[in-house]
Amino acid sequence: APFSNYEGRSPASGAQSSMSSQSVSPTNLLFLKSAFCLEGAFMSTDDIVQWLAEQNQKVTVNVRPCPLREIQGWHYDETMGRIQHDTGKFFSIDGISVCTNWNGPAEWQQPIINQPEVGFLGIITKEFNGVLHFLLQAKIEPGNIHYVQLSPTLQATRSNYTQVHKGRKPLYLDYFRNAKPSQVLLDQLQSEQGGRFLRKRNRNIIIKIDEDIQVYDQFTWLTLGQIKALMQRNNLLNMDTRTVISGIAYGNYSPAVIGLVDFLARDHELRPIKHAILKSALSPVGAKHSIETIISFLTHLKSMYDLDVERIPLTSLSDWVFEEMVIRHRDDRYFRVIAVDVEIGNREVVMWSQPMVEPAQEGLFAFVVKEIDGLLHFAVQAKLECGNHDMVEFAPTVQCLTGDERQTGSQALPFLDYVLSARPEQILFDTMQSEEGGRFYREQNRYAIVMADESLPDQLPDRYVWMTLNQLHYFIQFNNYLNIQARSLVAAISFT
Amino acid sequence: APFSNYEGRSPASGAQSSMSSQSVSPTNLLFLKSAFCLEGAFMSTDDIVQWLAEQNQKVTVNVRPCPLREIQGWHYDETMGRIQHDTGKFFSIDGISVCTNWNGPAEWQQPIINQPEVGFLGIITKEFNGVLHFLLQAKIEPGNIHYVQLSPTLQATRSNYTQVHKGRKPLYLDYFRNAKPSQVLLDQLQSEQGGRFLRKRNRNIIIKIDEDIQVYDQFTWLTLGQIKALMQRNNLLNMDTRTVISGIAYGNYSPAVIGLVDFLARDHELRPIKHAILKSALSPVGAKHSIETIISFLTHLKSMYDLDVERIPLTSLSDWVFEEMVIRHRDDRYFRVIAVDVEIGNREVVMWSQPMVEPAQEGLFAFVVKEIDGLLHFAVQAKLECGNHDMVEFAPTVQCLTGDERQTGSQALPFLDYVLSARPEQILFDTMQSEEGGRFYREQNRYAIVMADESLPDQLPDRYVWMTLNQLHYFIQFNNYLNIQARSLVAAISFT
Repeated sequence: APFSNYEGRSPASGAQSSMSSQSVSPTNLLFLKSAFCLEGAFMSTDDIVQWLAEQNQKVTVNVRPCPLREIQGWHYDETMGRIQHDTGKFFSIDGISVCTNWNGPAEWQQPIINQPEVGFLGIITKEFNGVLHFLLQAKIEPGNIHYVQLSPTLQATRSNYTQVHKGRKPLYLDYFRNAKPSQVLLDQLQSEQGGRFLRKRNRNIIIKIDEDIQVYDQFTWLTLGQIKALMQRNNLLNMDTRTVISGIAYGNYSPAVIGLVDFLARDHELRPIKHAILKSALSPVGAKHSIETIISFLTHLKSMYDLDVERIPLTSLSDWVFEEMVIRHRDDRYFRVIAVDVEIGNREVVMWSQPMVEPAQEGLFAFVVKEIDGLLHFAVQAKLECGNHDMVEFAPTVQCLTGDERQTGSQALPFLDYVLSARPEQILFDTMQSEEGGRFYREQNRYAIVMADESLPDQLPDRYVWMTLNQLHYFIQFNNYLNIQARSLVAAISFT
Repeated sequence: APFSNYEGRSPASGAQSSMSSQSVSPTNLLFLKSAFCLEGAFMSTDDIVQWLAEQNQKVTVNVRPCPLREIQGWHYDETMGRIQHDTGKFFSIDGISVCTNWNGPAEWQQPIINQPEVGFLGIITKEFNGVLHFLLQAKIEPGNIHYVQLSPTLQATRSNYTQVHKGRKPLYLDYFRNAKPSQVLLDQLQSEQGGRFLRKRNRNIIIKIDEDIQVYDQFTWLTLGQIKALMQRNNLLNMDTRTVISGIAYGNYSPAVIGLVDFLARDHELRPIKHAILKSALSPVGAKHSIETIISFLTHLKSMYDLDVERIPLTSLSDWVFEEMVIRHRDDRYFRVIAVDVEIGNREVVMWSQPMVEPAQEGLFAFVVKEIDGLLHFAVQAKLECGNHDMVEFAPTVQCLTGDERQTGSQALPFLDYVLSARPEQILFDTMQSEEGGRFYREQNRYAIVMADESLPDQLPDRYVWMTLNQLHYFIQFNNYLNIQARSLVAAISFT
């Protein structure tokens, strides 16, 4: 491993260091080392794939579409004009009317998932053989392509988390509730899909424990390198795991250390592209634009454009049809709201019904990256989505429903053709990943990272800006700067 | 000046520097040098005070309360349930119903100023004799205590700024509209009073020009040191100037440079408290809490608490009385919505009428600071205000309407007694400053910074956190992290 000889010279190890200790913390180094580690202390990555397949075969899952108008335990509330659970808990399907001047004046209406309670996504980590391991769960979710995917240690609603209703206590909850500040490696508020959720946010937490801990069935320890390796395959890591992982930063290193990395990369024959990615992640200097310039870019957009979102009754949405079975766009575009009856389990069977959102087609979320001034830069799009907490978030270079953007065809979507016609050697990453299986019905999207060749100009269209990976990590730590599609791609980037 | 011998050794000056260039930019150094400069290239600080007094005498201002129900050019709109301008422009006075679990379940209703368009607050700067000077305007505003205060070069609404209505073009507008990214020294979105404005934000911009520029009547150039010196007096710098100035950061310096600062401070007999402030501003290391821990603190609060704000008709606010002349709280607490007829000018008289908000009493906004581990720390409060864009912002240690918190008396407000009983030698800053004179009627508040003595424990109550000045500057750059009262205090901090 390239970093095996490196740790003793860590810039965080002494007060006399030329770097500030705030820039490279022991936590940064723990994460970085784990990211380089492709062999876990427990299962090999191939074994985990096998184990997940077995979990999937073992479980009996039955998900059947049912009439949306007669969905059990839910009802259309006339006062609020929405589909909600009889208890008022969980989430509701609301109607909204959106008004914005983002691309000239525009107005549209659509259904949206309204889940005001912040969700909790927590991962427990622990060092084994000096390497940080992450405790993930093989978890069933009714909407998943494979029913079982790897999820965080804890997925809980706030009510679960705080145990206000004294319901069944989620496994491992107390580790999070009792964590001391020194155990908290990451604790961020992050957004979900702004096109589907109304200002939904989750708390993403990683804690580190030192004590022994019981590992329940369906749970296993993985290194960060293994997690990233699994993201190179289709639909194995659920969306919640990907968002938590995306918040991990590796620190800001001085030019001297970056020089050392260059040296080690040559010495250890690190592939040039992985070396470029590593440098882009670790170096706070040399970016095309300063952080201040990028903030100015965003300030400009948030100042010049408006986004007004008003709740209206689901039944009065223009362009949407509320039928017996579904709510659908009259041209069958975007997505449909459906209802499902779910049956999970073998001996002990759990049953419930719920609304779900089913996409009209697969989406494409892709970053185009390019080496500029010797540093890998990402073409980042500032994108307005109606459910965003603060109007605009940083998004992948291309974010679209694949078929949809072509149908409209009036304006070519920047970079779409570039990504779709990329040569195999340009493709750094290209897999199908699922969106949240508790809300989305078999939604998988293509996530890709494409290396630009010389033909792509450095000059970007309006609303796009070049950023290094280090800068993306800088913005991620603050809530509502990177959208979940961009974060999923950041999470998938591996150094090995 | 302590920094006269220092510049040539600037850590930003060479690629071989031990610090990253992102941490100390040429802009940081320009600001820092100007902050140390108490003598401007044009007027002395005393002359500016004199000049402002003269401007104030020269102008004829007549502001008379008039009946709110019959205010000219405005009307109560039955559909929207609010007081708005006949053209629908400017701002409106809306009613809101607030629901939060911040201090146990609570609900209240209140009037609030609704001004959805982002405002533009811009300052032009230029170097004279190698020192950055700021172009400020002696500007009349009807609500100001003295009518004339120093305002930014440009105060404009978005409609003014973009010239969509082709109205009178504000002076100096084109400098901002045509600024190249390299001329932009600061460009941030910042919040206004969350208790009075519904999610109002302004774009705060500082640009730097090199060419000659016409200085109109009522405009003058000041160094940052002069601006900060004027803030040590009552009601001379308007709120908009203070917020723009608050966004200025001075860079992150390595321990080696901080050592040099220590040496120079001794050598130049800098007062110990000014030395402590300077170190707290410049040093990114040595803080009691890491940035990650502070983000975690905020994440926790934003995850655990809710803030629901719904618009309701002004006429149906419970606990508020809508009378002929005013809207007032039935116990005359908080504030009143009044209406005024304004007449300004000598030869050319400008007249208009508008609603204004008049406070029930003066407020107290104070930071308590304490040296911890050799570094000055600020006791920062996480405060929920109903008009906040994201529920909670960082606020001063004490933020209250002076009389009000005492009346309620049920729970003692943390640090209020400590601030009110501070001995003279503990008081680092203590002046009266005005809130925005275009919306608030003669609202001045006491702004103070109090040095804690040994008797104050390091342990803070829940929802308070120690931060260095460097950390406050770190958070300010992102929108909606520090509230305007906290930013006003940060702006007032001088190094001289």
